[in-house]
Amino acid sequence: MLFSEIEIDIRFSETDAMGVVWHGNYLKFFEDGREHFGKTFNLEYLAIFDNGYFTPIVKSEIDHKAPVYYGQVIKVITKYVPSKSAKIMFEYEVVNITTGELCAIGKTMQVFLDKESRTMELLTPDFYRQWKEKNNQ
Amino acid sequence: MLFSEIEIDIRFSETDAMGVVWHGNYLKFFEDGREHFGKTFNLEYLAIFDNGYFTPIVKSEIDHKAPVYYGQVIKVITKYVPSKSAKIMFEYEVVNITTGELCAIGKTMQVFLDKESRTMELLTPDFYRQWKEKNNQ
Amino acid sequence: MLFSEIEIDIRFSETDAMGVVWHGNYLKFFEDGREHFGKTFNLEYLAIFDNGYFTPIVKSEIDHKAPVYYGQVIKVITKYVPSKSAKIMFEYEVVNITTGELCAIGKTMQVFLDKESRTMELLTPDFYRQWKEKNNQ
Amino acid sequence: MLFSEIEIDIRFSETDAMGVVWHGNYLKFFEDGREHFGKTFNLEYLAIFDNGYFTPIVKSEIDHKAPVYYGQVIKVITKYVPSKSAKIMFEYEVVNITTGELCAIGKTMQVFLDKESRTMELLTPDFYRQWKEKNNQ
Repeated sequence: MLFSEIEIDIRFSETDAMGVVWHGNYLKFFEDGREHFGKTFNLEYLAIFDNGYFTPIVKSEIDHKAPVYYGQVIKVITKYVPSKSAKIMFEYEVVNITTGELCAIGKTMQVFLDKESRTMELLTPDFYRQWKEKNNQ
Repeated sequence: MLFSEIEIDIRFSETDAMGVVWHGNYLKFFEDGREHFGKTFNLEYLAIFDNGYFTPIVKSEIDHKAPVYYGQVIKVITKYVPSKSAKIMFEYEVVNITTGELCAIGKTMQVFLDKESRTMELLTPDFYRQWKEKNNQ
Repeated sequence: MLFSEIEIDIRFSETDAMGVVWHGNYLKFFEDGREHFGKTFNLEYLAIFDNGYFTPIVKSEIDHKAPVYYGQVIKVITKYVPSKSAKIMFEYEVVNITTGELCAIGKTMQVFLDKESRTMELLTPDFYRQWKEKNNQ
Repeated sequence: MLFSEIEIDIRFSETDAMGVVWHGNYLKFFEDGREHFGKTFNLEYLAIFDNGYFTPIVKSEIDHKAPVYYGQVIKVITKYVPSKSAKIMFEYEVVNITTGELCAIGKTMQVFLDKESRTMELLTPDFYRQWKEKNNQ
């Protein structure tokens, strides 16, 4: 299984008037997780772009298990989910390092969009098929 | 069926380097939708708070159907989803008014948290049961 | 003097753990103010873009006078500041409608960037000079 | 002179439709800089809070010198500005590490707010006076 881990300091601006991290900010943490996965396994956003594609998020889910307070540190575990279709899928776990608690789990799905025509690519692009083979996915 | 509709102007700061609204911002649009629903049907955040509860989001989902570009106007349709448990559930449709397209659909689930103890309320709070009866839900 | 006024509902996500609107979000309110000014006086972002320019913010200032709490409504007054140089300058007042208080004042300065070369235009573009004349600025 | 330096990876969500970091996000980078300064020199937000105070930003300024693109890395240099009044002042430099360019400079001013009464403290709090003495400020 391919996965990466990254620690993130919470910004004060990411908290809300309940005193906890606002739920929508977890999508930014997932983004940090994906970026870090990309750097670790050579599947970076800009490399994909250089191959001719945008990879917009078309689906995302977050399940919150416990709140995160300002001053606490989190860890995002980003797991690659293999798929036969022309999609990039990840699952995430957000762990509160300060308390040891699992705070949230989530999923995202990305598709390949031709960067010129902005139409969706229905077949797995060559560079991505090669990346999957190389990584036994 | 209880629902409300609100129009939202996209902020330039809500776009990203693909030139479209960044996917995570749809959770802000859902929030605008919930607020508007609350104002329309007397289920406002601050009224819930005065009854002793926070109602944090514990689950959210977004399915993107089409991008939204800067300069376009969207409409959020927020639909109340009846439930027997101590939860508040909504479904959302985001329509691009400029193009007529459905851009995204989504869901959120909220629970009742005692605002002092921050523990989850397992039984439907009285005020919410009354609200449901009054609105035939 | 050219100015416009717009009312804005605070988003819950715009508050922070102090229970008030996070200071950085005022730049979003200024943006809402500029957009509204643009719509009112035909100086919209996309019209400027169609004339060949981006107009990035190169300077911004915010002075906070009083906090804004969730549930309160604000009004942004956006005032055009005439200038002989190739710049667009605005001053802002943010008024808390709920309390009547002045919450913040601010300024922004924008320059004209050729949208192809991304170099700064040192002379006032024709379309903008005409806009100024038409509006006696 | 007291200062600290921190490197920040740009989030894709922090870019806008011009393809560069949205100007308002620099206030988040300044916040990261302040946090890091606080950790380095024992002037952390939560320590101040434990001494009885909030320290809201009452003034902020940003001067943009050059754009930052997605994929680039920045460094924020946060410099403490000594003052005899009951204020915390910082100056910031944002350097694009990828290009070597200075991207932005800025300032912030914070005051001490009694966390119970939310009134402004006009005299320098004891703990802060001691911190200044210890650090020769």
